[in-house]
Parts: sequence; structure tokens; C-alpha cells
Amino acid sequence: MKLVDVLHMNGGMGDISYANNSLVQRKAIILTKPIIEQAMSDLYNNLLPETLCIADLGCSSGANTFLVVSELIKTVEKERRKHGFHSSDFHFLFNDLPSNDFNTIFQSLGEFKHNLRKQTGEKFAPCFFSGVPGSFYTRLFPSNSLHFIHSSYSLHWLSQVPDLIEKNKGNVYMSSTSPPSVIKAYYKQYEKDFTNFLKYRSEELMKGGKMVLTFLGRESEDPSSKDGGYIWELLSMALNEFVVEGLIEEEKVDSFNIPNYTSSPAEVKYIVEKEGSFTINRLETTRVHWNYASNNNDIINGGYNLSRCMRAVAEPLLISQFGTKLMDLVFQKYEKIITDCMAKEETEFINVTVSLTKKK
Amino acid sequence: MKLVDVLHMNGGMGDISYANNSLVQRKAIILTKPIIEQAMSDLYNNLLPETLCIADLGCSSGANTFLVVSELIKTVEKERRKHGFHSSDFHFLFNDLPSNDFNTIFQSLGEFKHNLRKQTGEKFAPCFFSGVPGSFYTRLFPSNSLHFIHSSYSLHWLSQVPDLIEKNKGNVYMSSTSPPSVIKAYYKQYEKDFTNFLKYRSEELMKGGKMVLTFLGRESEDPSSKDGGYIWELLSMALNEFVVEGLIEEEKVDSFNIPNYTSSPAEVKYIVEKEGSFTINRLETTRVHWNYASNNNDIINGGYNLSRCMRAVAEPLLISQFGTKLMDLVFQKYEKIITDCMAKEETEFINVTVSLTKKK
Repeated sequence: MKLVDVLHMNGGMGDISYANNSLVQRKAIILTKPIIEQAMSDLYNNLLPETLCIADLGCSSGANTFLVVSELIKTVEKERRKHGFHSSDFHFLFNDLPSNDFNTIFQSLGEFKHNLRKQTGEKFAPCFFSGVPGSFYTRLFPSNSLHFIHSSYSLHWLSQVPDLIEKNKGNVYMSSTSPPSVIKAYYKQYEKDFTNFLKYRSEELMKGGKMVLTFLGRESEDPSSKDGGYIWELLSMALNEFVVEGLIEEEKVDSFNIPNYTSSPAEVKYIVEKEGSFTINRLETTRVHWNYASNNNDIINGGYNLSRCMRAVAEPLLISQFGTKLMDLVFQKYEKIITDCMAKEETEFINVTVSLTKKK
Repeated sequence: MKLVDVLHMNGGMGDISYANNSLVQRKAIILTKPIIEQAMSDLYNNLLPETLCIADLGCSSGANTFLVVSELIKTVEKERRKHGFHSSDFHFLFNDLPSNDFNTIFQSLGEFKHNLRKQTGEKFAPCFFSGVPGSFYTRLFPSNSLHFIHSSYSLHWLSQVPDLIEKNKGNVYMSSTSPPSVIKAYYKQYEKDFTNFLKYRSEELMKGGKMVLTFLGRESEDPSSKDGGYIWELLSMALNEFVVEGLIEEEKVDSFNIPNYTSSPAEVKYIVEKEGSFTINRLETTRVHWNYASNNNDIINGGYNLSRCMRAVAEPLLISQFGTKLMDLVFQKYEKIITDCMAKEETEFINVTVSLTKKK
């Protein structure tokens, strides 16, 4: 079943669409700001379009939705002043699954524009905003209609759970105990999805258009390493404890798999080059400590906030497999496991960021 | 206060934005279908764009939202087959106030596309959809980005209540007992709003782009005639009965005015020619009996349904003046007055439809 269908089936989860709008994602956006800025400055100086068309894929509906928008406007404004160019209009296109809460984005635009005007002193160019519902594993925008695509903390989601020929016993994601066929199926789904993503985006971008994509990944070349999937390994642990207690059937855990893939920079490079539409300008990893899920950086709060953030992301999927009844208990256990783990180990998310230019 | 602010103030009324999605509006769309079809055929045959960009202004969020979309697709498909042209992609842009329920539109798109495929036999061109929040009395879209604009049952709304120098005693709209200064102020606001509307849309449309606009209007040249404002006169009657009963302060009714303007074809012609960006292809009136508010066309149901439809439209405005407490009573009385009136008289809405082409 496609991810978009699972989210629909669960009644349009409102603000739940992708692993977005957490403090962890906010930190990731701030860490990758120099890469976004460089791509946008280069693009603007090269193309100087009358209207700069910018899409944010997997925009969700919270503070992070607008963070990238204001950074991009400030970057262009700085370049414009430096070189004395005429101003470009901006057209921002917010994309997420149809179950995303677009109403909240639209109703927050007035305040966002008001604050932006205060910050930039009334003098920024006209901005147009629209919402575009749909999976980014389909075509979303007309051909040659975009200059710049940004996506943060969304592309580690696959379009669907991989088709497995063996059970992924005791696991909900790739792990060191997963059969090789499971690892292979995960990679196969990822390669197919990311290749389609690149193909569709290359059709939508104009010549010279750019993309900056940040997603959860890993540094290790081993797809089953803790590096990429530790947070899901802890969810497996929580679910398995319920199996031991007889509250969840073992078979249900064995046949439940998270449609995520945390890729390595080498895998990204391989697929981009194989697909052929884009050149890679930068390909980097950054690290965000799990503690960033909390404002004040302590472990107890970090564990609580991270499990809340994971709940927002994983609950619709868990409900479709295990029903609603046990959800509070599952996430209480998950929180405890996360907090214990943060007290004992250095726990970090690896972000992979790739900056790309459309070839022709 | 601007209409957009009133609707915001009332907490984002969801599906309440413009007088849309009623059976009356549905009938009006069906009546004006030949005008829409002609404009779209001419446009398509003249421009043959790779992607046909079509905006619906005041789209609301119900069955009528998609009615125009499917009619336009069928029209283009018919022309394409007749002349053997390559197919164009479609880009539909749904606009309404930020308080409109865009989530419902976006979550209905899957089913809409599925049904359309069934009707047209899988063979229609790719369609892209986006939502654009904002008042159409501001710029909404990038310059030269649209081919076709449609708007139905929205443009009779003014951007705000006219600035009145005298009280409109006992009335909530222009009526035969309104002071001349009130009539003048209403017209002034309408002329300003419609002129701005034409100016902004001419900036957004490409050369040769077209608009078909249908709105509630009148045939009489007297702005205070029953022809255009009878439905509001009946609302005044309902409110005045509460004044007599001491439940509503007279002063509150005297200072409450509906930000509507039902214009005549001559006024539309005058303003379009004065503004200068468009040529008029067709300018016509049609009539829809109030009974069309009901599926089965009887007066009791018609009165009930029409008052429900008017409630959806007027309640946010009434609440901002009179509070929430009396609303059920007010609309019960309004329903009774409407039903009585439909039993005694021929009651019809006048629709004005204008088909325009951008000059250069």
C-alpha cells in the first residue's frame, strides 16, 4: 500500500505528513543554510527571472514551513542589493500529501507576511503563495515551471513499504538481524523512488534550475547499521516487549515495516549519476543530536519530545497495523526506551544534504 | 473592515467564503455553460498552450468547485479531437479567501480525478492542481501566468462595507428607502473594487487570455430595485421584527450593511470600458428561480434550502454585528419570510455573465 493511502486511510491526519516541524528538523535547516544560500544566490545571479518560482516539497504546516521561505527571500534580497538588480517577484509553492493541513498554512500567511515586512522593512518584492497537494513520487507541477526546489526531512520516506519475500522477523526497519533479501528489497524500493523523484523534478524544473534536498541518512555504507535506523530499532524493541507481554501478536510485528530509507551519500551519488538529469554541486552530511528535540537540551525532555515527534510521524502507520487501542502504551514505552538510550549513548541523526543543478 | 477580516475574525468559517456551492449556483453554472465553452474553445484554438493555466476565483469547497473543472476539460478535449491537436496539460488554480476549506478540496481531488478518468475513458491530459488563498481584490498570481479565469457567484461581494456618511435606516442593503448617499457609496465601492479586479487580472493573464465572470446582478438600472436586493430586503424584515420585539437594538440594524453589490449589465460595460484592459465578447443575463435552491423544486423546501444557503453566506457577517445568541431565531424567521414570499410572488435571482478577452 502506498504511504499516501495509509495516511488517507487514517482519516487525513491533519498536520501529520512527513517528519517535519520538529526542533530536530529546524536545527537541520539551520545547519544546511549555507548550502541553500549558495544554491539560491547562484541561481538568482545566473537566471535573474521576473518571477522566481520556488517549491518546498514535504512542507508540513508549522513554523519550519515558513523558515525556509524567509531565508530564501533574505538571500535573494541580499544579492539583489549587492548587484543593484531589479527585484524579482516570488512564487512559493507549498507541497505535501493531501492529508497535510494546508488550511493552517494559508491562514498563517497573513501573519508571516506581516512579520517579514517588519524584518525586511516593507521593501521586499511581491510574494505569491500556493498549495500543491500530492505525493512527490508523482508529477506535481507543469513542465519547466520551477526555478528552485527545496525539501527537508521528507525524502527518507519511501512511496510504499518495500515488497518483501521474507519476513523481517522482530524488526520494523532494516537492522543487523534482517535477512539480506529485506535489505535488498528496501534498497530496490529506494532506488526506484529516488530515480522517479529525480526524473519528475527534472521535467518540472527549468534549465539551470536547482534543488537542495536534506533527508535523514547515514554515513556507514551498511544499510542495516545503527547509523541510519537506530530510532526505528528502538521502536521494534518497544513493540517486541508488548509481544512478550502477549498484548501484540508476534506475526503483526514481523509483518510491519516502516517505509523509510536512510541513504548514504555514496548511494545518492550513484543514483543521481545513473538517472542523469542533474549535476551534483555539493553532497554533505551533518549531525543533529537527539537532544535537539528539546528546547533546553536535557535528556528527559529530549526523550519526551523526540518520542512525541516520532509519534506524529509513525502513529498513522502503526494504527493501520495494530489499531488505536495500544497507542498510548506503545509510545510511553518508546519514550522510556529513547530516554534510557540517550542517557547511555551518543545518539545522533545523520542528515544528508545534496545540492543539484538540472543539466539541460 | 474588509470582508476577509470579518471572515477571519469569525474563526475561519471553513466552507463559508462566497455564495457558492448552492443548487442555485449549480443552475447558474449550467445556464452559462455555452458562454464558458465558447470562450474556452476560442482561447484553446488561438493559443494552443503546452500547459493551459486556468484559475477559478471564489472556488469554495463543494461539488460546484469541480463542476467547472470537468466542463472545461471536456470542452478542450472535444476541440482537441475535432482538430487533431496535440493535447495540452491542465493547471487548475483554486482561489478563495484563506478561511475557505482548501483541505476538503485537496482531499477530494483523488476521487474527482478517478471519476473524470471513468467519464473520459482514461485519455485526458495530465492535470495539475493548486490552491491559492487570498482576496481577488489583491494580486493573487504571478504576472502573465494565466490563460483563463472563471468566477461564479463571488464577484457580487465587495472588498468591504462601503463607507457611509448617513445611516441606512432599517435596511441591510440598498433599498427604495435608502438615502441617495448610501446608494452612491455602494456604487463607489463597487466601481473601485471591480476596477481593481480588472486591473489585477489583466496583469495576471497572458495576452489573449480570457475571463468568464458570473455574479448576482439586476436588469433594472435602479440599484435600489427589488431586482437585485430582494433577498437582503427580506433579511432586513426579519431583523426589524426582532427590533420591534426588543431583542435587537435598532441602532445595530441601522449600522449593519451587507458588502454586496448586484450590478447591471450597463454598469459592468461602463467599468470594463473605462478600465480599458479588456474587450467584451458577451454580456448577458440569466434568471434562476429561488426554487432551484431545492432539488425537488417545491416552495417549502425551496424556502428552507435558500435560507440555509443564505445562512452559510451571511451568518459570519451577522455574528460580527449581533453576536451568536440570536442566530437560530433570526434564520428561522428569515426562512419563514422567504417561504411566504415564494408562495406569493415570482422570485428570481438575476445572473449577469460577462465574457472578456485581454486586449494586449
